[in-house]
Formats: sequence, structure tokens, C-alpha cells
Amino acid sequence: MADVKRVVLAYSGGLDTSVILKWLQTTYGCEVVTFTADLGQGEELEPARKKAEMLGIKPEHIFIEDVREEFVRDYVFPMFRANALYEGQYLLGTSIARPLIAKKQIEIARKVGGDAVSHGATGKGNDQVRFELSYYALEPEIKIIAPWREWDLRSREQLIAFAESHQIPIAKDKRGEAPFSVDANLLHSSSEGKVLEDPAHEAPEMVYMRTIAPEDAPDKATYITIDFEQGDAVAVDGEALSPASLLTRLNALGKENGIGRLDLVENRFVGMKSRGVYETPGGTILIAAHRGIESITLDRGAAHLKDELMPRYSELIYNGFWFSPEREMLQVLIDKSQELVTGRVRLKLYKGNVTVVGRESPYSLYNQDLVTFEEGAVAYDHRDAAGFIKLNALRLRTLANRDRKVGR
Amino acid sequence: MADVKRVVLAYSGGLDTSVILKWLQTTYGCEVVTFTADLGQGEELEPARKKAEMLGIKPEHIFIEDVREEFVRDYVFPMFRANALYEGQYLLGTSIARPLIAKKQIEIARKVGGDAVSHGATGKGNDQVRFELSYYALEPEIKIIAPWREWDLRSREQLIAFAESHQIPIAKDKRGEAPFSVDANLLHSSSEGKVLEDPAHEAPEMVYMRTIAPEDAPDKATYITIDFEQGDAVAVDGEALSPASLLTRLNALGKENGIGRLDLVENRFVGMKSRGVYETPGGTILIAAHRGIESITLDRGAAHLKDELMPRYSELIYNGFWFSPEREMLQVLIDKSQELVTGRVRLKLYKGNVTVVGRESPYSLYNQDLVTFEEGAVAYDHRDAAGFIKLNALRLRTLANRDRKVGR
Amino acid sequence: MADVKRVVLAYSGGLDTSVILKWLQTTYGCEVVTFTADLGQGEELEPARKKAEMLGIKPEHIFIEDVREEFVRDYVFPMFRANALYEGQYLLGTSIARPLIAKKQIEIARKVGGDAVSHGATGKGNDQVRFELSYYALEPEIKIIAPWREWDLRSREQLIAFAESHQIPIAKDKRGEAPFSVDANLLHSSSEGKVLEDPAHEAPEMVYMRTIAPEDAPDKATYITIDFEQGDAVAVDGEALSPASLLTRLNALGKENGIGRLDLVENRFVGMKSRGVYETPGGTILIAAHRGIESITLDRGAAHLKDELMPRYSELIYNGFWFSPEREMLQVLIDKSQELVTGRVRLKLYKGNVTVVGRESPYSLYNQDLVTFEEGAVAYDHRDAAGFIKLNALRLRTLANRDRKVGR
Amino acid sequence: MADVKRVVLAYSGGLDTSVILKWLQTTYGCEVVTFTADLGQGEELEPARKKAEMLGIKPEHIFIEDVREEFVRDYVFPMFRANALYEGQYLLGTSIARPLIAKKQIEIARKVGGDAVSHGATGKGNDQVRFELSYYALEPEIKIIAPWREWDLRSREQLIAFAESHQIPIAKDKRGEAPFSVDANLLHSSSEGKVLEDPAHEAPEMVYMRTIAPEDAPDKATYITIDFEQGDAVAVDGEALSPASLLTRLNALGKENGIGRLDLVENRFVGMKSRGVYETPGGTILIAAHRGIESITLDRGAAHLKDELMPRYSELIYNGFWFSPEREMLQVLIDKSQELVTGRVRLKLYKGNVTVVGRESPYSLYNQDLVTFEEGAVAYDHRDAAGFIKLNALRLRTLANRDRKVGR
Repeated sequence: MADVKRVVLAYSGGLDTSVILKWLQTTYGCEVVTFTADLGQGEELEPARKKAEMLGIKPEHIFIEDVREEFVRDYVFPMFRANALYEGQYLLGTSIARPLIAKKQIEIARKVGGDAVSHGATGKGNDQVRFELSYYALEPEIKIIAPWREWDLRSREQLIAFAESHQIPIAKDKRGEAPFSVDANLLHSSSEGKVLEDPAHEAPEMVYMRTIAPEDAPDKATYITIDFEQGDAVAVDGEALSPASLLTRLNALGKENGIGRLDLVENRFVGMKSRGVYETPGGTILIAAHRGIESITLDRGAAHLKDELMPRYSELIYNGFWFSPEREMLQVLIDKSQELVTGRVRLKLYKGNVTVVGRESPYSLYNQDLVTFEEGAVAYDHRDAAGFIKLNALRLRTLANRDRKVGR
Repeated sequence: MADVKRVVLAYSGGLDTSVILKWLQTTYGCEVVTFTADLGQGEELEPARKKAEMLGIKPEHIFIEDVREEFVRDYVFPMFRANALYEGQYLLGTSIARPLIAKKQIEIARKVGGDAVSHGATGKGNDQVRFELSYYALEPEIKIIAPWREWDLRSREQLIAFAESHQIPIAKDKRGEAPFSVDANLLHSSSEGKVLEDPAHEAPEMVYMRTIAPEDAPDKATYITIDFEQGDAVAVDGEALSPASLLTRLNALGKENGIGRLDLVENRFVGMKSRGVYETPGGTILIAAHRGIESITLDRGAAHLKDELMPRYSELIYNGFWFSPEREMLQVLIDKSQELVTGRVRLKLYKGNVTVVGRESPYSLYNQDLVTFEEGAVAYDHRDAAGFIKLNALRLRTLANRDRKVGR
Repeated sequence: MADVKRVVLAYSGGLDTSVILKWLQTTYGCEVVTFTADLGQGEELEPARKKAEMLGIKPEHIFIEDVREEFVRDYVFPMFRANALYEGQYLLGTSIARPLIAKKQIEIARKVGGDAVSHGATGKGNDQVRFELSYYALEPEIKIIAPWREWDLRSREQLIAFAESHQIPIAKDKRGEAPFSVDANLLHSSSEGKVLEDPAHEAPEMVYMRTIAPEDAPDKATYITIDFEQGDAVAVDGEALSPASLLTRLNALGKENGIGRLDLVENRFVGMKSRGVYETPGGTILIAAHRGIESITLDRGAAHLKDELMPRYSELIYNGFWFSPEREMLQVLIDKSQELVTGRVRLKLYKGNVTVVGRESPYSLYNQDLVTFEEGAVAYDHRDAAGFIKLNALRLRTLANRDRKVGR
Repeated sequence: MADVKRVVLAYSGGLDTSVILKWLQTTYGCEVVTFTADLGQGEELEPARKKAEMLGIKPEHIFIEDVREEFVRDYVFPMFRANALYEGQYLLGTSIARPLIAKKQIEIARKVGGDAVSHGATGKGNDQVRFELSYYALEPEIKIIAPWREWDLRSREQLIAFAESHQIPIAKDKRGEAPFSVDANLLHSSSEGKVLEDPAHEAPEMVYMRTIAPEDAPDKATYITIDFEQGDAVAVDGEALSPASLLTRLNALGKENGIGRLDLVENRFVGMKSRGVYETPGGTILIAAHRGIESITLDRGAAHLKDELMPRYSELIYNGFWFSPEREMLQVLIDKSQELVTGRVRLKLYKGNVTVVGRESPYSLYNQDLVTFEEGAVAYDHRDAAGFIKLNALRLRTLANRDRKVGR
């Protein structure tokens, strides 16, 4: 067991991380520093402070920070510039939050002279990887304590028992086995486990917490506009909003219209398949809008290159490689493409559907003259198409002649 | 002008291709052979025969064929194995039909001793490329006549005038300028031009012909199952169906539930952007279902490789390179992955939404034991994760140490 | 420690694997079955049998097999169809041998009722990964013993001491510290460690064992021909040869002409950089020849797709994923491209250089008529190029017009 | 025929472009402005001035510029950062020069009020595409005159006859048919046509002009060092050199040692295969050195991403898309990776061979401690490898278990 003096723990204030806090104190005999972030998960932070104090953390070792703007501006928005979807569908809501938390823990460790960091992610999931790759990339000699991989608590009962024996208060609704586990932040909430474990069965309605059911959404469509500047959303319905405020607004719009639910079986980096239910109301609107504004402002060559690299970029984020040279290289490529991705998209929101119904931009590459039926003043000569096709066909014709010659 | 004796024309029986037919006869002084295919566009074929006869085509030179099963089995299904989406969104409904039509024309040309083929695609679109690359790939020395690039008819009025002067009957509703132009087959219908040309304005409801509006769809969800074998759909709600019958069934289900509308600005191969409205009711259900069955039967390595190659594969089909070595190479790669993509997907259809709510398969790779919270009998040791992370982090730590050393 | 009854060991007969053999017997108290393969490493196999017997292995548990033909036919040749180079340079000579050895061990384990396999690869290298991924992919529940990761022998001295205390004979030249370590098979030999560890210093001549120095090679070039069928070499100088015989012949030719040396710093899968010296005399000739025959028989689309996927394919082999769905998918794609890669290449070998000086094929796609200065009978119209360029330029012109309009 | 007032011609001073000059004057009745660049092709420029004057060009319309430094600094070096090789072998020496010439012509056209540009590339080659895509990307409404595609001169004889009838002086050695055609600049020379047209026959020694034969090179190796800063070479043997001076130095070293010859059948963008002989003496040394310095300074993730994108990047340059958004996006990605590609490479040059024999850097990521046989102070625990392998194997084991269960 590593010799640890002072550990910075990602602390939510909930039962699990409170047990970890106590376990760190008793097992490692070390000082614990807590970091609690407001990522938009929708919980009060002050109770976490109280609980930390109660568990013996010095006030100057309790760090609580509202990182919502930083989260959306420096993590969510850059990712959305790429239209990132893991396995074609997942908007990476959990994955994108981990690097930020890890970065904050490392910064605090430097400030308080911590020699270790710790998190509450389990030993079978992706989050442990995302946390720890980020820790190591930022502070290569840091010690990492992952209690779920180390301790011998092997069930909910044992966890509760440990809490009880250490005077950790337990909320009534946490006593029993939760029917599924949840992660949430401003971008999304995810649910997995227990009632969701059989992928043959539909997820029960109670799983959803961020969106109302499409069936319960208004019978009339809501129309909105989103303005973009250099690839990032900056206004809704003409009102300029900060990144976090904008995403909050879109979340509300998505929620009301039953938008952003996803029921998915995905492939974890650690090697197994898992089934999750995701709710990303604002993000689902945002990616549609971003594709909409790109469709008129991005050149084909740029757009196709981005599309081909997107799966790789998304995989890097999913696997926890946010702080890696290859993610950063892809990011500069993507950002380069966004310089004139500026304009307004109009969307229709209706019972789970997001539809782009209009796009306009001072930087539009859409040229109405070029596509009209009649040949216009513009420099498009129908006969050019013949040459274009002939030369594109040349290798195929050569091939066909060869194949014929050899009787294929 | 090429010396042409006998040309095989892709003939719909409509005004445009009738004008082309007559123009070919009068301009090239050649014999015209017509080919009219039932691709599921929803029109009677016998009127085309009558019209061709009336325009002087010999009965033995009028070819009419129902190719719906071939279309779905040999073109649509192979493409859906790839989850192909052009520019992230378009299901390639027009693109995938062209190679089949071209192939049939070439086969007929061989049968009747034709030395040329002709089509009714305009000089600004992608279809001319798709037709002609296919012609050339299959019959490298064939002559190709693309009237829209050759003649001097430059407007609807001139077309009508030509028709009148050559006794080509003109349906009343074809006299005026159509508010948009349409292509349709069993997979989709597409609309573009005129009222759709300003991408800032929402497409009017009249454009949609294959789907009812989500607003008009039933207030209650419809649940269906689709069965897959080796990557292809084989049954709906347990009833085995031929490829074309199955797609027809899904089209009906999609239509009723307002599913499959897409309003898109896309990048044409010939270099400009265009705006189209697509309706792919059955295909939209099918791709969701296919992703669903893949999610439990496909290994991560296989799935991610497919995802990374999909944009390229889709671009090839969009650009008209169906009959190319690179498309065929990608196809064998994709098909190899589908060998055990077999099982049943359950879907919820509701007012424009398609949601996978269940998947099961005798070949499932989903292992409930591996993901449960408690460590089970299965060979997953939490401590393995530590080593996994440590070695994945090694290069990042080396990098961070280097950067620190040089003061970066 | 796992309960092991019978373990199949990859046994070379050398000191290290003899120590492992004895360590397995004494530590696990299990029966050891040895597998010794002739992969063309250039050592007698019978001494391995004698030594195994001497160490107490039952005769029926000593497996010795000449796998050279299988190695070249089923592993080396498929890989060469891809022109595989790891990090642009390394011909993967070690990587490609591991899956075959692993496969044989698993087959023997099934035959003799073995419940475990073991290998002599160290805990810092790639080979442990390659062996074990292959074991697991073929026999998912097999037990794996990797002595170098388990035992407490931490230096050469301790190894020698263990050998002495267990009556394992030690060759005189093995007593001291070797100046570098070697792996060899029919495709290549690799050297690393000790005298090679500083990448700033030139590798000493004594490291090379498979090739003479270019300086010592004949002053006159040697010309040879290699015939290919479907992407695989089948004859040298017109003489048909089996795969292993052919590679042996090329090795001799390469050796004499100082061909195939590579001094490289590479990135290991386990996360660190290492420096190795490789000698791949025949393989270096073979890849040049293969590229030569492809250059006239492979269509551009096929060739470029292969080139783009090659780095990924090579990485998979380097990392040990030979037996993975994604490698197999890439293989069918590659093999599909090779159907007509048939013909003869003429090469000049001279003091380290391999130069393709001629290529011919009944399936050649090279068309002299198309490239001649004067326009010939062939269907290439110079004016087609104008249209080709115009349409390829259209999006760039639209872009430039937009940029100008917005003052960029 | 376009109405042209003033055309900027890429003028070499040779026979072909002199004929073009005169043809432009007589055919278009326009003023001709000449641009002659010193790209390091090894010819005097003043004779071109004289000849232009003699052909009636106004002195203020004769532009002669030494662009060697700009060429190497802004075109060659950025390309070498990518280790660009077209079709795995070609160093793109011709391709990379065209965008620069085109850019200069456009700049001159703006300066002199030119409305058109013209070049001497033929209608079957890649260069016409590279010139014209560059023209259009920089000046979308420029008129382009490509005489080889327009005029009716169809043979060498007709060209000579035209020259004679217009008093264009003809050098004696230009009267006859040249045995091959040549393009040259500081990076390379290329030869093609005539004596090279049969790819089965070895290129005759007379084709080579930039390198002596390996057979004629010194019998003793030459050792040199190259220093890099941020991915670009800055010094040879410790002597700081400007980009063009450095490449000139490497060219001399390569020439003397018989380095940089390539005999290749390649795929042109316009659809046919062609056979060329390239000599890139300095470039061949440079790419080896660059790979050498990258091997110790570049992280694996960065290196592999670059390697995977290189074929695409090279294809873009080969096809003429230097001034395209996608090339620029790839460039920023590549440049981002080069920030610490700084250090010294030692190379051995010997009779056609370039071998990296040493590399060192203050930014080295090579860590001798990590690779030593004995476990050192560094944080590498052999047991981590077990976990790394186990989790990497998990999906393969799941797959194998599934396959077994279903009897595959």
C-alpha cells in the first residue's frame, strides 16, 4: 500500500464518496481534501460542505467550485464542434466531464501539497480510466487511490455496514438497493444497472429524469433559433447567452419537448458491453443545429474530413484520452474548420423530434444560382460535367477493358 | 456528334423522358430501346409501354421489369449493413438506385445489340455521374447520350414546345412549372428545387408525399419487432418477408407514424451545395433496428472499424462508385462483420421517433455477469483495471515528465 | 496462484526456457508439455528434445514441429499482401510469428488435456501481449503463466544461479551477460538491449547476423525476377518455389547483397519506446517486389484504400490482434484486392539497395496508348480535362468568392 | 474563345512555352506577361528575359523571381513534416512546386491587371490540374488558357513548324524528338515518356541527371548530422543553413552518394497509370532524418495519427489540392505535432543507402530506464502488464466463448 500523506478526493457528498472519505482516513491514515464541483448535476453543494466538515475535513481543505461555464466552454463546446457521437449515437455526456474534474483535483493537489488523488468510480467502468489517464497526463508522479478496486466491500450491504460503523449518515432512500445508478451533469444524465441490465427489456419510464416522455410533450411544435459563432452556439431566439446558460436553456426546451432520450448498448473501453439510458436534451438539439449551420458554411472537403475523423475523436474522448497529443491534434484540425461556422439555424421541436427547418449565414457557401434548373449567369457549363465524368470513369473503363480481355 | 445506331434509354414514361426519346430519334436518327423499371416508385408501368408504342418504339424494344426484389436484396440491404449515411444524415435513397438501372440498361444493350445508352438526368446533378460511371464500369466502350447536357432546350417552356411540336401528349398538371422535382423508389422519395431552394425557409408540407406529418400520426406508440439474419432484415413482427415486401411493410409503418423526414443541405459531387427533402420511412426504421442488433452481436473492434469506414463507403455510393474496386473491397469487409448479426430488435414508433427498446440474439456478446455491480464468478478482476490503466497511461506520463523537464 | 495440472510451454531449448520449464515444475507442481517450433530461426531442434527429456518431460509430451511453410503461407504472405509496415518502417518480423506459436500451443493443450500455457516473454515487451491475446482469442478459459512477470528472478545472475541449483546445463557463452538479445525466424532477426540501448549510438557491426554489410556485398548488381500469383510470390528467377523455400531463397539473395537492415526506435504497445535492429533480407526484397507488381495490376481506388488502411492493419499485428475480428475484416478487404495481382517483377539488388526495374503482367492496367504525348486512337479527349478541372474547382471557387465577399 | 486582354504565362524560356507565348499573342490577340521562377531547376533565368523581350514582351511585363527560399520554407518543409509519400514511394517533387508558381502568377495578374493566366502543362497530366485548381482557389473568376488542350498542334513536328514560322529560335538539341521529358526543381527532377514508357524495361542510365549511380559513388560511407527545430531541418553537420541552402547541401550529398533514385509506375489523378523516374537526392535524406528525429520526440498517439492521415494528405498534394480547406486542416494537425520535434540525427550515406544511425534530443521521450531488462527505479510494475492484457483480451474472450457456444 502506497504511503500517502494528503489525498484530494472527488467528493459528491453522497453516501459512496462519504464512505470512501472515511475509508481513506482509516486505511491510509492520511489527510483528506475534498473537491466538490457544480457541473450542473442539479444538486446543492452546501450539504457536501457540511458533510465533509462533519467527517472531519478541515475547512481550508474543502473545495467547492461552480465549474459549469468552464465545463461547457472548454469541454462540451469543443467536442460539439466535431459532431462527436460514440458508436454513432452517444453524445459522450459522462466522458466529457471526467477530464475537467481530474484537472481540478490535480490543481488542488498542487495548491495544498497533496501527494495523491482519489475517485469513486468502480473497477468495471470507463470512468476510472478517464479519471486516471487524466491525472497521469497532468501529474505523472501522482499517487492514485481507487477504493473500489482496493477495498473488500463487495456489496451494498457491506457499504451500508461500513457507513453505520463509522457514523456516516445515510439518507433513507439510500438504504435499499437503488434500482439503477445515475451520473448527471449539465450536458446529460445517464442511468445504468439493475432494472436496465437486460437489453431485451424496455427501460421503465421511471429511469428518465431529465426529459418528459414524448407522449407528454405539447401537441404543438416549438420553433426556436440558435445563433452560432465560429462553431459555438452563442444565442437562443436571438438572446445572447453564456455557454452554460445557453445549454441550460436548451435543456429546458429539450425537456419540455421530450427530446434527447437514448437507450443504448455500448462497448466499454475495459472490454465488456453495457446498457445505458442517456438523456441529453440540450445536447441533442445542439448537435442538430450545429450540423445545420455547418451544412451551409462548411466546404465539402472540410466537412467530409471531419466526418471521417469523428469516430476516432469520439473514441478518444470515450476512452479517456482527452489530455493526449492525438486528441489535441484532432482538435486543432476541427477548430480550424470552424472559423466561419457562423450564422443562424431555425429548429422545430416536437415530441422528441428536432428538425432543422432553416439555416442562414453571412458566410453561406450555398449558391442558389448554381442549382437552379436553368443555366444562369454563373460559370457552370453543362458540358464540363461530361469531362468530369469521363476522367473519373477512365480508370474504371481501363479496369473493365482489362477484365474483359482476361475473360473475367 | 457520335454515330449511334441503337440506344437504350432509361424511360419513365413521363414528359421529360418522352421528349428525350423523341429528341434521340430526331437528333441521332437512331433506334430507341426503352427500359422502364419498377423500383417501387409507386407508378403504373403499363402506361409507359403504351406511350413508348405511341412514340414509335417497336414492341420487342420496350423493356419493362419489376426489379424491386433485386433492388432491395442486392443494393439496399448491402448498403444498410454498413449503416451508411452521407454527411451524417442522408440515407442515399436516390444514389443506390442508379447503379441498378444502369446495369439493366447495359444488359439490354447487349441483348438487343445497342451501341449507346441514355438517361434523363440533368447536367448539374449527381445522377448523371452515377449513371455514367456505372455504364462505363460495366461496358467501357459504350456510347453515352446525356440529352440535358447536349440539347438547346433551356427552360420548361422550350421543353413543352418541343413536346407539342412532336405530338407528345402532355398531362395537364405537367404544363405548368412544377413547384419542385421528385425522385422516388421503394427506399425513399426526394424533392428538390423551386420552393425548396432557399434553405432558410421551412419546406412546405405539400412537399411530403411518403409520410404523414408527425403531428398527424397516432397518439399512441406502435411497437414492432424486426428479425435479422446475417445483417439483413428478414421478418417484421415475426412474419418472414422477402426483401421488397419487408421494406414495403416498414414504409407503411413509417408513413403512418410520421417517420423518416429529412430536410438537408448537402454537398454534391459536381461541386455545389443543394437543398433536398427526403422521405425514407422504412429505411429510417431499418437503420435504427440494424444498429440495435449490431449493438449486441458485433464486437467492439469490428463495430468501430465499420464506423470509421462508413463515411468513405457512403461517399463512394453518393458519388456513383458502386461498381468500383474500392466499394467492393469495403463491401467484403462489411459483409464479413455481419456473419452473426442475427437476432430480434424491438422498436417503438411514435410520431416521428424510432426508438430501439429491446434486442436479443442467440449470438449476443452482451454478458450480464460482466457488468453487474458485484464481482461475480466471471473472470473479471478489478485489479486488472489498475494495470490496464497504468500501461495505457505510460506514454502520457512519459510525455508529461518530458514536458515538465523542458519547462513546458 | 492458479491451480495448474498440465501446462504447454513454448520451449526453445535455450537457457531461459529451460529455467522456466524447471520453475513451472517446482512452483506449480504441474506437468510440463513442451512445444518447439522450427520457424526458420536457424537452430537445430533435436537438442531441444534431448534437453526436455533430460529435464524430465515425457517423450509423448515433447512436441517438435517444422512450421515454416505454414508460417510463410498463412501469416507472412497475407501480411505482405497489405504492404504492412509498422511506423512506416518495420516489417513486423517478430510480431507475425507469435500468433502461430500461440495457436500451436493451444492445439497441443487440447490434444494432451492441458489446462495452461506458458511462454518466455518478458513483462516489458510486446511479445507477452501477442502470445496472450492469441491464447485468449482461441481458448478463452485457458490459464496463462508468464514466469517473467511472476517469479522473483530479477537479474541474469539469479537466473544462472537457479539453473545451477537445478542441474540445468549452461552453455559457456550463456554464462556471461549477452551484449544484446535476439529473436529470429524465417522472416527476420531482431536484436535489442544492452549495446543498443542508447539510440544516439550507431549499432555495432557484430549485431548483424543475417546480412553482410553493404560494404562487403558484391560490387556488381544482381538481377532477379519474382513471379506473383494473386498477391503472393510463387517463383524466383522463373523457378516455382513453396512459400518457405521462396523466402529462404530471397533471404540468401538479400544477405549476400547487404539488404534488409533497419535500425529503429519504435513505440511498444505497452507504452515505452525501444530501440531495435532488424534484419529482414528476403522480406525487404519481397515488399518492394509486391509494390512493383501492384503498381501495374491494382486500380488506383483499390491501391489508395489499401494504403490508407495499412497503418491500422500493421498496428493490429504489432499489438497482437492477429486473431481479432477487425484484422480478419481488413484481411478480406486486402485479399479481395489481390485477385489479379499476378505477374513478374524484375529487381536489381546492389549493396543494400533493392530497386524495381521492370514489371509485367497479363493483367496489367498500364496503358501505353493513354500516356503518349500524341493523342491516340484511345478515348482520351484533352477537352475532358477542362471539365474535370472545372467541376473539381467549383467548390474552391465558391469558397474563394465567399471569402472575398466577407473580406477574408 | 474567351475574350482575354492580358495573360500571365508561366514562362520557362524554353521552346514549348515560347511557342505558347506566340500562340497566345496570335490567337487571343492579347498582351502576354511572363513569369519565370528560379525554383532551383538549375537553369539560368536571364536568357528567358532576353527571349521574352525578343518575342515582344514589354520589359515591365517580364517578371523573374528567385523563389527558392519560399519554395523550400513554405511548401517543401511543411510537406516533409508529414513524411508525405504518394503511393508509399513518391516524394511529390513536381506536385509541390505547382501551387507556388500558380500563386505567383495570380499575384502578378493582380499587379498588372491581368485577366487570365496560362501554363504549358499538357492535357493528359496532373500538372494542368494542379495549376488550375490553385488559380481558381486563389482567384475564382480568373480566365485560364491551357494551350495544350486548345490548339491543334498535335506533334513535335507541328510545334517546330509553328516556331519556325514565327521566328522563334530553336536550340539544336530541341529539333529532334527528346527521348524523355523532364521537370526539375530544387527538390527533385522527374523524367517520363518515350524511352520510359514500357514499364517492363529498366530505365537507361542517361535518364538520371541529379544523382550518380550507386555503383559510381564512393566506396566509403559519408556520415552527416542534421539538426531539426520544430520539425524542420535547420543545420547540416552543425552548420546552420537557410531552407534552400540546406536542401542544396543535401542534394549535393545525395548526388555524390547515389541516393534518391526512384523508378515508379503511379496513378495519375486524371485516371491513367504512368511511369516516371524521379531523383530526389536531398529529399530522400531528409525524410529519413525526419522520421529519425520523430522516432524519439513524438508520442505514439501523435505518430500513429500522422501515419494514418499521411496517405490522404499526400493524395491531396498530388491531386493539386494544396490550397484547399482539407489540406490546411491536416496541416495544422501535423504542425501541432511538430512543436518539440527538435534535435539531431546522425546518418550514414553509402551508395544509394540512407541509414539513421543515431538520434538525440533535449525533448527525447526515449527512456532507457523503462526498457532495461532489470526492473528499475521507474514506475513500471511487471504485474501491470497482466491487467493490461487481461482487459485487452476481454472482448476477444467473450467473442470466443460466444463462438464456441454457437458451435462456430
